[in-house]
Amino acid sequence: MSHPVDNAVSAVRTYIEQHRAAFLDDLVAWLRIPSVSAQPDHAQDVRRSAEWLASKLEETGFGTAEVWPTAGAPAVFAEWLSEDPEAPTVLVYGHHDVQPAAREDGWSSDPFEPVVRDNRLYARGAADDKGQVFFHTLGVRAHLAATGRTTPAVNLKLLIEGEEESGSPHFRALVEERADRLGADAVIVSDTGMWSEDTPTVCTGMRGLAECEIRFHGPDQDIHSGSFGGAVPNPATAIARLVAALHDEHARVTVPGFYDGVVELTDEERALFAELPFDERRWLDTAKSRAAHGEAGHTTLERVWARPTAEVNGIGGGYQGPGSKTIIPSSAMVKLSFRLVAGQDPDHVEKAVRAWAAGQVPEGIRCEIDFAPATRPCLTPLDHPALRSVARAMGLAFGKPVRYTREGGSGPAADLQEVLGTPVLFLGISVPSDGWHAPDEKVELDLLLKGVETAAHLWGDLGEHWRHAP
Amino acid sequence: MSHPVDNAVSAVRTYIEQHRAAFLDDLVAWLRIPSVSAQPDHAQDVRRSAEWLASKLEETGFGTAEVWPTAGAPAVFAEWLSEDPEAPTVLVYGHHDVQPAAREDGWSSDPFEPVVRDNRLYARGAADDKGQVFFHTLGVRAHLAATGRTTPAVNLKLLIEGEEESGSPHFRALVEERADRLGADAVIVSDTGMWSEDTPTVCTGMRGLAECEIRFHGPDQDIHSGSFGGAVPNPATAIARLVAALHDEHARVTVPGFYDGVVELTDEERALFAELPFDERRWLDTAKSRAAHGEAGHTTLERVWARPTAEVNGIGGGYQGPGSKTIIPSSAMVKLSFRLVAGQDPDHVEKAVRAWAAGQVPEGIRCEIDFAPATRPCLTPLDHPALRSVARAMGLAFGKPVRYTREGGSGPAADLQEVLGTPVLFLGISVPSDGWHAPDEKVELDLLLKGVETAAHLWGDLGEHWRHAP
Repeated sequence: MSHPVDNAVSAVRTYIEQHRAAFLDDLVAWLRIPSVSAQPDHAQDVRRSAEWLASKLEETGFGTAEVWPTAGAPAVFAEWLSEDPEAPTVLVYGHHDVQPAAREDGWSSDPFEPVVRDNRLYARGAADDKGQVFFHTLGVRAHLAATGRTTPAVNLKLLIEGEEESGSPHFRALVEERADRLGADAVIVSDTGMWSEDTPTVCTGMRGLAECEIRFHGPDQDIHSGSFGGAVPNPATAIARLVAALHDEHARVTVPGFYDGVVELTDEERALFAELPFDERRWLDTAKSRAAHGEAGHTTLERVWARPTAEVNGIGGGYQGPGSKTIIPSSAMVKLSFRLVAGQDPDHVEKAVRAWAAGQVPEGIRCEIDFAPATRPCLTPLDHPALRSVARAMGLAFGKPVRYTREGGSGPAADLQEVLGTPVLFLGISVPSDGWHAPDEKVELDLLLKGVETAAHLWGDLGEHWRHAP
Repeated sequence: MSHPVDNAVSAVRTYIEQHRAAFLDDLVAWLRIPSVSAQPDHAQDVRRSAEWLASKLEETGFGTAEVWPTAGAPAVFAEWLSEDPEAPTVLVYGHHDVQPAAREDGWSSDPFEPVVRDNRLYARGAADDKGQVFFHTLGVRAHLAATGRTTPAVNLKLLIEGEEESGSPHFRALVEERADRLGADAVIVSDTGMWSEDTPTVCTGMRGLAECEIRFHGPDQDIHSGSFGGAVPNPATAIARLVAALHDEHARVTVPGFYDGVVELTDEERALFAELPFDERRWLDTAKSRAAHGEAGHTTLERVWARPTAEVNGIGGGYQGPGSKTIIPSSAMVKLSFRLVAGQDPDHVEKAVRAWAAGQVPEGIRCEIDFAPATRPCLTPLDHPALRSVARAMGLAFGKPVRYTREGGSGPAADLQEVLGTPVLFLGISVPSDGWHAPDEKVELDLLLKGVETAAHLWGDLGEHWRHAP
């Protein structure tokens, strides 16, 4: 008699194998809808994509599948309740809108006419994010088939937004408005990736983001650098000095209070990062950069995943055209973004930056600062029961040990964490070569089906190991 | 019997009074020609202006008056030789082109339809520079009339260029090509001003100018500040640090070797500057600035006239549009200009800046620097005999002590100094309120006629006190 785990794995695989063709046909049909949220002339396509998905989720077996309008593009909400009264509730987050794409950008085939080459499915949205949303439709059915259940072992909710590629401008309002429908014990974000084809990983957190523009005003208009040069404050020089003062010689941010509350990496986490097959030269190739540089005492992976940063996104002032213009510019500005890690409070960071900048303004310069709405960091501890379930489910699907990563970027999932007060987990099967936002975006079909498998195992594992405390 | 000096003054004034109306009519006719060198559709007007002037100079009595073509707009050369074999030779520099002007820029009347209001002549070019060129036509005739001479006491040459308002792109080549015709003992630049209506001054020097653009290249393209932020060098941060390192806490330029050779102000010069009725609050209003700031140990006037500077004319990199873009920019650049004072060698400064910048480039950043052709500083010592003549002539005309200034800007006169090896002096009667390059440019008619008087006295004084060493 074979081991029950082996039985579960093969039952899931058998079901997936039987339904693979129809699953892919459906995904291809969805990928054909050019749901580009950034382009107003595709607004109708984004709506069509939402309706298509809602209808497909109902057909899949979700008891509820609704298109939720927003002030922008619509989201899709679906729900498949468990009959188990102690089943935990899981909210899956993804998005059905895609980045712009045109054949002439360098695509080998039409971005909205999906094709399979070398066991890869090429299309805009194949990995980011339709493919990774769609594996949940087959995953939950494989879960039911392999376990013989009639309802899932978790209350499964899906919230698939339609404006992620446009910065999710209405997402937080939507979550706040629908908070009563979205209540969950955990959020599972399926809009990220894993380390590589050979190294399945679970992401445990994302950095947050605070952004500001600082403007220094000097003379009321550009003035002649011959007549006045050397004798009045130059706002471009002053803004450069401000930026230069932002980091010390160890590349640490100098803003007093900036690091307040930062959750430092544990030795275990540092060791887990160090286990990853990281090749700095390859990473530099991806970063299109010639050198690694960052906070002293930390590795590159620690710097991008677990350390807060201050980066200049843009700087400008005075004459930038060809040739020269002998002026002292009237003003100069810098756009700064701060990536935040667990424990940092964006409001506190904003206050700290404002106070620091105010202290850097030379006499004769007037300073203005605007902050954009911030995104909070999120981090799930390694010993969180739901995180352990994700790792176990992924391990079953891939037949390998699962390692841990984090995400250096920031995303709307943080709004779910904040508004709903729910831990955020990440389940993604995309790999760095998938070409998000680039020409020839693709998803590896084998990995896509591993995503289906993982979802199938995850719901059973969660229902078994993590009971909802009523 | 009256004093001979009084006689000379009144003889000059009488002659000018007799010819004032015709002189002004002629100037008005010239000002009607819109000789805007920066605008290609006025190229014909610039040529017409040159021809008009050459013809007028011949009519005035200049033995030679030629239109000299250049690769751009034409210059005018004229010559009136002295019969005295030991007479010094003086080359007057000015320009006949003007800045663009249009009624809708805020002019109270058509900029090319001169009008007199309140004893001021309003027109584009009234002060910069047609008025100040034109006073030489009547000045030399008043000199002859008042002294009873048939030829001037100096060999008088005029070189009136046609591209000064476009940066004099072909001026140096013209001077090099025509050096044999332009030979002189001194150059008199009539394209500057004096302190104020009440304070006649002689300018004794101009600062030079070295300009460069420094570009820092980081990642090969803009990269995501979430994925890579904190772990690779940011070229915008690096260029800001370069700019911040350009000055020390005393606002002195830190570039090693930058101050090499600087001719320091003498106590006499500092005392002369301090004698000027300088009102810093008023000066700040003119500078449209809220504070004075510059090299420690120097006054504002010393800073703008006699100290070398490093100013940022423009800085740019990354995203500068509305909102935010979470990138590490691929590159950033800064445009720097260095004002140079007597004793500084632009080539040496260029080498010093290149070496300094190379030492500021962080690992992983590639640096490019381009220098534009430089303008040398020029300075005539206070005890130069020709400078004493200018001061005496001005003192006779204004009936007041004459004080000394310098010019913080830089000009093509430096090319004359360098190519011809000739000291450069300045004779200008424009005042700060004349509105150079601005709407409602004007010249004070009383001051314009003082310019005529000064020129009339100057040629005699020079011929008497400064003999040409054969």
